[in-house]
Amino acid sequence: MTQTKIQLEENEIPKQWYNVVADMPNPPTPPLGPDGNPIGPEALAPLFPMALIEQEVSGERWIDIPEKVREMYAIWRPTPMFRAHRLEQALGTPAKIYYKYEGVSPAGSHKPNTALPQAYYNAEAGIKRLSSETGAGQWGSALSLVGKWFGLDVVIYMVKVSYDQKPFRRSMMHTWGAEVFSSPTDQTEAGRTILEKDPESLGSLGIAISEAVEVAAANKDTNYSLGSVLNHVLLHQTIIGLEAKKQFEKVGDYPDMIFAPCGGGSNFAGVAFPFFADKAAGKKIQLVAVEPTSCPTLTKGTYAYDFGDAIGLTPLMKMYTLGHDFMPPGIHAGGLRYHGDSALVSQLYHEGLIEAIAVPQIATFEAGVQFAQTEGIIPAPEANHAIRACIDEALRCKESGEPKTLFFNLSGHGHFDMAAYDSFFSGELEDFEYPEEDIQASLRNLPRVG
Amino acid sequence: MTQTKIQLEENEIPKQWYNVVADMPNPPTPPLGPDGNPIGPEALAPLFPMALIEQEVSGERWIDIPEKVREMYAIWRPTPMFRAHRLEQALGTPAKIYYKYEGVSPAGSHKPNTALPQAYYNAEAGIKRLSSETGAGQWGSALSLVGKWFGLDVVIYMVKVSYDQKPFRRSMMHTWGAEVFSSPTDQTEAGRTILEKDPESLGSLGIAISEAVEVAAANKDTNYSLGSVLNHVLLHQTIIGLEAKKQFEKVGDYPDMIFAPCGGGSNFAGVAFPFFADKAAGKKIQLVAVEPTSCPTLTKGTYAYDFGDAIGLTPLMKMYTLGHDFMPPGIHAGGLRYHGDSALVSQLYHEGLIEAIAVPQIATFEAGVQFAQTEGIIPAPEANHAIRACIDEALRCKESGEPKTLFFNLSGHGHFDMAAYDSFFSGELEDFEYPEEDIQASLRNLPRVG
Repeated sequence: MTQTKIQLEENEIPKQWYNVVADMPNPPTPPLGPDGNPIGPEALAPLFPMALIEQEVSGERWIDIPEKVREMYAIWRPTPMFRAHRLEQALGTPAKIYYKYEGVSPAGSHKPNTALPQAYYNAEAGIKRLSSETGAGQWGSALSLVGKWFGLDVVIYMVKVSYDQKPFRRSMMHTWGAEVFSSPTDQTEAGRTILEKDPESLGSLGIAISEAVEVAAANKDTNYSLGSVLNHVLLHQTIIGLEAKKQFEKVGDYPDMIFAPCGGGSNFAGVAFPFFADKAAGKKIQLVAVEPTSCPTLTKGTYAYDFGDAIGLTPLMKMYTLGHDFMPPGIHAGGLRYHGDSALVSQLYHEGLIEAIAVPQIATFEAGVQFAQTEGIIPAPEANHAIRACIDEALRCKESGEPKTLFFNLSGHGHFDMAAYDSFFSGELEDFEYPEEDIQASLRNLPRVG
Repeated sequence: MTQTKIQLEENEIPKQWYNVVADMPNPPTPPLGPDGNPIGPEALAPLFPMALIEQEVSGERWIDIPEKVREMYAIWRPTPMFRAHRLEQALGTPAKIYYKYEGVSPAGSHKPNTALPQAYYNAEAGIKRLSSETGAGQWGSALSLVGKWFGLDVVIYMVKVSYDQKPFRRSMMHTWGAEVFSSPTDQTEAGRTILEKDPESLGSLGIAISEAVEVAAANKDTNYSLGSVLNHVLLHQTIIGLEAKKQFEKVGDYPDMIFAPCGGGSNFAGVAFPFFADKAAGKKIQLVAVEPTSCPTLTKGTYAYDFGDAIGLTPLMKMYTLGHDFMPPGIHAGGLRYHGDSALVSQLYHEGLIEAIAVPQIATFEAGVQFAQTEGIIPAPEANHAIRACIDEALRCKESGEPKTLFFNLSGHGHFDMAAYDSFFSGELEDFEYPEEDIQASLRNLPRVG
């Protein structure tokens, strides 16, 4: 019988996360405060527990996963890796295609990989409540899922337009016991300020972040939790790539190229960083971040210090950015609509150690449908970006005759994104031109540093 | 580390299905034709390929699973079995609770376990197209998923009210390449007859069946495919229980009681029949079918010959029935709204070899939410019935101090049923009184046989 699924046993769940900082040729750039000077760990203390702050600044290569976290990872981990036999056949490619499927988590994406340890460390620190924001709802779902397991209340500020248009992600969060508010609310200074100016405001991720941070800063028993971008979030996600390496070992194979969607960077880092360790040790492997042409942070942005949020409340991080007030078009891959990128991913890209490409929306859905019809799983729109890039490479292999081993992260299922597939089938989906002028305008507003 | 997930390797996927007929104390009752005489296999030939008809009437205990089917089962099988540690703890029960999770299939339920072999045997027989009906959409999704893998076109007649109200199950079917029609259509005699009488007809499962059967009967290259009730469907689903037995062996445990939702019977049979083999050999085990109080087929119906469909087109089957024109209230567990039950399940129940209980709707959602908050997965409304029954037993164990081993089939996830959870949270969900009068009225219309 041809092997389709490469599984690991529960006791093969990695015991440590991998910290890419240890293998980077240069130390990571520091975040800067409003005064332009590097901020210390203490600046983060009102929002995060010390254990996470230590991870955020750690240079250690390996960081132990607490036994309790490993035990609870087992609810959905190890996740399966698949050989895409039927997709390969449909493409007629000599390439071998593998994918790791993170949609088996109860929340349906890779996001719980970091929500779980974040909840654990906060509960250990005596915190009673976590606040966060969510746009399309994947991160909010992940945090809501894990809260109850550690006796934590979870409060989610969901961007109003999504709250109204994506009721089922909201229902999921309710089912797991979270409080979900349509942001802007009148509970916070930030929300009230916005509502005063525009009572009909549809909200934005920037506003929702402000509300969640304000609530965490103002309440001693409440901390804030972030779903991407930060070093500790990327660290937790490396469990994906660490498992994948064991799975490749099991079948005696190794990828030539890895593809992952890239928004804030934790999806890409999660699968690619553990392989970067091999690359740093001299192994030949290409690590490719895939982003939408409508929000081409790495491929068209500038490497500069910028704010992480739209309003300018966060510390400044050195990253590829389209400018913090760049507003990407309303594509369906909500998780990839971010003006910036993780500092670690940005630095590795700047140093030429990883690659990036941008793909247009309609082509990503074409790839997603081809994948669904051959492999079965209906992918999330974010994951369709990696699939598109991987299929394109497999087709190049068909031309050249190269039997490359390709690997991508199928970071989530599309069960809550079927309206996007409907738009695709009805021909309503649009490709957005690279909005050069908008980006240039937005880049003119970059903060001046040093 | 406490073990949470009990997995099998791909090569442990069973090589044979289990046929309960071999272990039944009495031969199965035959289906009858319109003349009241038993029908032979040839009566089924216009709709089904010979391989499936042979399985339908087989008395062999073990039936080989074709190698190709095993290979493709591996896309989602073996499915994981879980020990529900956190649910046990929340209940404070000495009982051990295990569940098998069938929601990992790309269609999100156990239905592809039979859709896959049905597509395989039809393709082998040279069939080019499969037609079927779907209500809420789970069966239609399953058949749509597998069609393309065997080069088969799939046409689904979806009950109009569901077609309009559950657009995302329809989108799933489209994504997998199926044609989905809102039934009644003007393509069939059956549909046109209905539309002539009522152009605004919302459709029904009975009408959709008539359309799908008519299309299959009228086209040589088209066969019909059914998602439950029939013997061969139950046979294919036994892969669930066969895997579960191996998984219990791995942890050195064995269930005292098994719970599964019961609509047409394939969900229950799939998990319970392989354990019935042990019961027939003298082992003590309770097999409990769980149905809604609003459609209490086994617990309040009559054991009699009746039609399988609402209109009276199918052969007569001896089964527990509420009367073929009984219209159950519109509960959210659409898969359990069936007036009858599989002939095999009915016979075993009639002979006192299996048990049945009925549970009210609101209590099933309370159980589902408690499950989601402890175990993570949000269950389908059908699965909530098994969870309710299992939790009730676990609470009895708490009273009595008995450390029973309980096992239920988590037959699917609820990602496409979040509106039902919303109704629950908003207090709009209703419990339906056992509609004694309706059932009595409907039972007066049972066909007279013999």
